[in-house]
Amino acid sequence: MAIRERVFNAIISCFKRHGAEVIDTPVFELKETLTGKYGEDSKLIYDLKDQGGELLSLRYDLTVPFARYLAMNKITNIKRYHIAKVYRRDNPAMTRGRYREFYQCDFDIAGQFDPMIPDAECLKIVHEILSDLQLGDFLIKVNDRRILDGMFAVCGVPDSKFRTICSSVDKLDKVPWEEVRGEMVGEKGLSPEAANHIGEYVQLHGGLELIERLLQDPKLSQNKLAKEGLGDMKLLFEYLTLFGITGKISFDLSLARGLDYYTGVIFEAVLLQGERAVEEPVSVGSVAGGGRYDGLVGMFDPKGRKVPCVGVSIGIERIFSILEQRVEASEEKIRTTETQVLVASAQKKLLEERLKLIAELWDAGIKAEVLYKKNPKLLNQLQYCEDTGIPLVAIVGEQELKDGVVKLRVVATREE
Amino acid sequence: MAIRERVFNAIISCFKRHGAEVIDTPVFELKETLTGKYGEDSKLIYDLKDQGGELLSLRYDLTVPFARYLAMNKITNIKRYHIAKVYRRDNPAMTRGRYREFYQCDFDIAGQFDPMIPDAECLKIVHEILSDLQLGDFLIKVNDRRILDGMFAVCGVPDSKFRTICSSVDKLDKVPWEEVRGEMVGEKGLSPEAANHIGEYVQLHGGLELIERLLQDPKLSQNKLAKEGLGDMKLLFEYLTLFGITGKISFDLSLARGLDYYTGVIFEAVLLQGERAVEEPVSVGSVAGGGRYDGLVGMFDPKGRKVPCVGVSIGIERIFSILEQRVEASEEKIRTTETQVLVASAQKKLLEERLKLIAELWDAGIKAEVLYKKNPKLLNQLQYCEDTGIPLVAIVGEQELKDGVVKLRVVATREE
Repeated sequence: MAIRERVFNAIISCFKRHGAEVIDTPVFELKETLTGKYGEDSKLIYDLKDQGGELLSLRYDLTVPFARYLAMNKITNIKRYHIAKVYRRDNPAMTRGRYREFYQCDFDIAGQFDPMIPDAECLKIVHEILSDLQLGDFLIKVNDRRILDGMFAVCGVPDSKFRTICSSVDKLDKVPWEEVRGEMVGEKGLSPEAANHIGEYVQLHGGLELIERLLQDPKLSQNKLAKEGLGDMKLLFEYLTLFGITGKISFDLSLARGLDYYTGVIFEAVLLQGERAVEEPVSVGSVAGGGRYDGLVGMFDPKGRKVPCVGVSIGIERIFSILEQRVEASEEKIRTTETQVLVASAQKKLLEERLKLIAELWDAGIKAEVLYKKNPKLLNQLQYCEDTGIPLVAIVGEQELKDGVVKLRVVATREE
Repeated sequence: MAIRERVFNAIISCFKRHGAEVIDTPVFELKETLTGKYGEDSKLIYDLKDQGGELLSLRYDLTVPFARYLAMNKITNIKRYHIAKVYRRDNPAMTRGRYREFYQCDFDIAGQFDPMIPDAECLKIVHEILSDLQLGDFLIKVNDRRILDGMFAVCGVPDSKFRTICSSVDKLDKVPWEEVRGEMVGEKGLSPEAANHIGEYVQLHGGLELIERLLQDPKLSQNKLAKEGLGDMKLLFEYLTLFGITGKISFDLSLARGLDYYTGVIFEAVLLQGERAVEEPVSVGSVAGGGRYDGLVGMFDPKGRKVPCVGVSIGIERIFSILEQRVEASEEKIRTTETQVLVASAQKKLLEERLKLIAELWDAGIKAEVLYKKNPKLLNQLQYCEDTGIPLVAIVGEQELKDGVVKLRVVATREE
């Protein structure tokens, strides 16, 4: 848990540095609140038993509850973070940091602002956190739902299939294109031509120059949505240049993010491996993601009033498992407590003296422990320090009591 | 949330000072794990819908999951804390800090040790936390399940009715004796004589002298359980004297704590009010409680191996509501963010300069914000500082850019 505390602290520091306040929402939501927000992942929602009350589900992420909270409290402007657990009826994969119950660390900016400034800040936050945690090389992929939708349109995907084809594209980080193409054509009934056309686009990734090129693309540039998305993407990259972080950011047309609620910019940070070899660095998994969801709050407002939002979620469980594996490999011993001193005795019958001394230490704010035995052996007390990593031992003895002093010994060196 | 953070920090500091490590258990437990541990409160457990898996419930407290965790992982010795939410299908009462979903802050010591040393440490912890949080005068009531059971026996309560009569006694902090007596005799079929006899005992409270007197009580002293409990209570008070905290501790025969799993010492801390008046200070509600549960871990061990445990739970929601009410009454304004400086501009078209400057501040670890507008008015930027309590504003202007400096203004005094 020591590693976990360090990671939480790094993330919370960053969120606070960017002016976010913390809010908390309940772990239950009305079942209807969650329905229809997660695309094909909705089957993973945990429902509560009807016990004579409302139909409740456990939250699936922190974004939908946040949007529901904004609408309910008529908040039109807030920057907040929320670190809490979410629940999915999924197949856990411990080593890859995938669980049924896990923490999410979310930062969101809600409000009507000039385009792409909050979006750029979200990317800056991901950059700061991944740099700070020293997880190794990383890349932040960026795309835009409007560009994807525009691309689907010019490739000949019917409107009604945008979302389900988007879910297929979302699988490209895990399975090869051929398989995704198979799903599109076989299961989802897309024409092979449309699929092939999508296949050409989703290979593209780059920076400002790719954005410029696509703005000139004869088909895409004719599509209103794609043009809007590409224009904003250009603006985003200008801001990212001012932040000095474009080196780690890639505009990537294969990035889809399956959740239904995204409406604009989407992004995902992946860790890279294989730099030392000649080959290209390969992604070893997503550790952060997010995007813009301008329509979600309006879905919960009785009058449909919209509150534009953009946010980022840090995949903290995967980060934990990476850092924990690293510590395990290094065979470094991590202390589980912070105790500074063990109050011990050299002779028997000194429990009273030990208890008096430790109460003084606690009252002085010193982290101290005592063995819960009337007459522990000195050797056992020293062994306890060795086992738990307590650096100091305060030894009460008869002579010391007479002299009115306490012997303090450094466990590692036996210095007194 | 600023108050909440302060309270959490005070409690975590105390738990760490006493050498506890932090552990986390899942929010779900198998339904059967929770069954039969909470006496008459079991009806408040939230069950999950059967979605083709196990029958799950949401945890009702952190103690039963902790015991299950110890048995499952064969841990026989640990000192841990756990701060997390628990769930009860109860009628919420916001002003009194009672909710369906709420935090518990638990500290527990598991292991086979010499009697009453860990128990005394739990009381010391409650004393430290309530002193530290300055909630006003408080009293920690202490009793022992063995003394209660012995008392029930000598009063003529049949063995089979111990638990349910214990639940009735538990209500004494909320309803008068006459009503509790009515429940015992009317609903639970206890003889009026036995009830009257209990009534005499539950009026008693005091310190070491009461323990000594009861050890001489002709009936109680004949009862094995009561004698054992009173002997340990005496030892406990000796240790509490060494810790210097007996002034706030009262041995109270009316304290029952209804949960089924307690086996030894039980305690509960209440806040007091009415000191200034002539009357006795009256309790305004429980803010911490706990006790010894030596049998619980064994219930989850396939071989029934016991691990003695004692623990304390801090009622943090009530503490929040007390402190929040106090702040509200004082009309003190609490900041919700920690932002130190707003990066602002005096003229138009300086978004680029603002973004460059704020990236530098963030990279230097400074908590900074910027308005998400291309051309905000200086007045609006200063107003934002006033509204959110940001103390400093860094103003970028054309002249300053030429000079290569930034004007820093203290919002409150307008000093530059």
